[in-house]
Amino acid sequence: MKLYNYFRSSASFRVRIALNLKGLAYDYVPVHLAKGEQKQPEFAALTAEGLVPLMELDDGQRLTQSMAIIEYLDETHPQPALLPADAAGRARVRALSQIVACEIHPLNNLRVLKYLVNDLKASDDAKNDWYKHWVRLGLQSYEARLAERPGTYSHGDTPTLADCCLVPQIFNAQRFDCDLSGLPRTMAVFDACMQLNAFQKAQPSACPDAE
Amino acid sequence: MKLYNYFRSSASFRVRIALNLKGLAYDYVPVHLAKGEQKQPEFAALTAEGLVPLMELDDGQRLTQSMAIIEYLDETHPQPALLPADAAGRARVRALSQIVACEIHPLNNLRVLKYLVNDLKASDDAKNDWYKHWVRLGLQSYEARLAERPGTYSHGDTPTLADCCLVPQIFNAQRFDCDLSGLPRTMAVFDACMQLNAFQKAQPSACPDAE
Repeated sequence: MKLYNYFRSSASFRVRIALNLKGLAYDYVPVHLAKGEQKQPEFAALTAEGLVPLMELDDGQRLTQSMAIIEYLDETHPQPALLPADAAGRARVRALSQIVACEIHPLNNLRVLKYLVNDLKASDDAKNDWYKHWVRLGLQSYEARLAERPGTYSHGDTPTLADCCLVPQIFNAQRFDCDLSGLPRTMAVFDACMQLNAFQKAQPSACPDAE
Repeated sequence: MKLYNYFRSSASFRVRIALNLKGLAYDYVPVHLAKGEQKQPEFAALTAEGLVPLMELDDGQRLTQSMAIIEYLDETHPQPALLPADAAGRARVRALSQIVACEIHPLNNLRVLKYLVNDLKASDDAKNDWYKHWVRLGLQSYEARLAERPGTYSHGDTPTLADCCLVPQIFNAQRFDCDLSGLPRTMAVFDACMQLNAFQKAQPSACPDAE
């Protein structure tokens, strides 16, 4: 398997965690987003979406969208499971994941921040306020959902898809100096995850293309 | 089952389609987003996320996030299936769904547009350009993915989760007068879906709270 990705891309980071949790080896192919490598012909020939992560399977099949890739990995390599066995549990884990992947991250990724600055002429302060606003709102929802069913990780005592989404978002939040106070459950889950080698090894600073 | 939703919310529309495709009856509980009813205490007591759709099951359990709700419905009411039987097919359907639900819709929902206008002081034109930009970019990706594997619907000859996501997005795009030229496969899938009663009945103008 090849994972086209970027050390700082949090959607890439999600997939790296899942691969590590599953103990799956993969080739790390860096695509430098800040230099626009995702728009170069070689990468565009692989995926019309022009986004990382892009997973290329050994049979040449290519998968996009981090949550879809992780669910694929979970279905084809069931152990350890990244989704609970019960439908209600799966719904909760997917909802937690989507709080990050649909409510926070899409608003704060690189191409959106560039649009704010280049097209909407947002100042640096305005851009940072925007970033912090959506992080805060989303993580407050996450915190409230954790209160419903406390556990070591986001759902129970083993890491799930939700943790694969949460941890990269916290890294981003820290990089942008977001207020993470008042989120004790969320931060305890983050800390528990970062005790695990699978999360440590996947973090941006541990990537071959880290700067 | 109760579905707390709003006629114009495209994430709500996705779930209405899925319920109709499954032939499941539900109580329609309107939450008027434009009037801010999702921030009122009665609704906030039900869900910390403050978002529609919110699905309340007969046992009182509440589910959030449209894609998670639809996957739950598919797991608990398997026929007709809204996800393919094979892992690769499921990955493709989820990726298509996420092109809409993670790349387009989060940037264009009501609270984001309000932030652009109220906080970033974007003009009406700038707001509309933003809207159209993300719709166009996302739908071009969608179109390219459809070209890989042509079918009546987004994936094969029966409607899937991907169609539940695509159709509401096209409704929104039309409402904001977005350029939908050069998307023949996407629009043919949209037209095929709209031949079906399940999609017709779910559309905003058919909802009890339609204005």
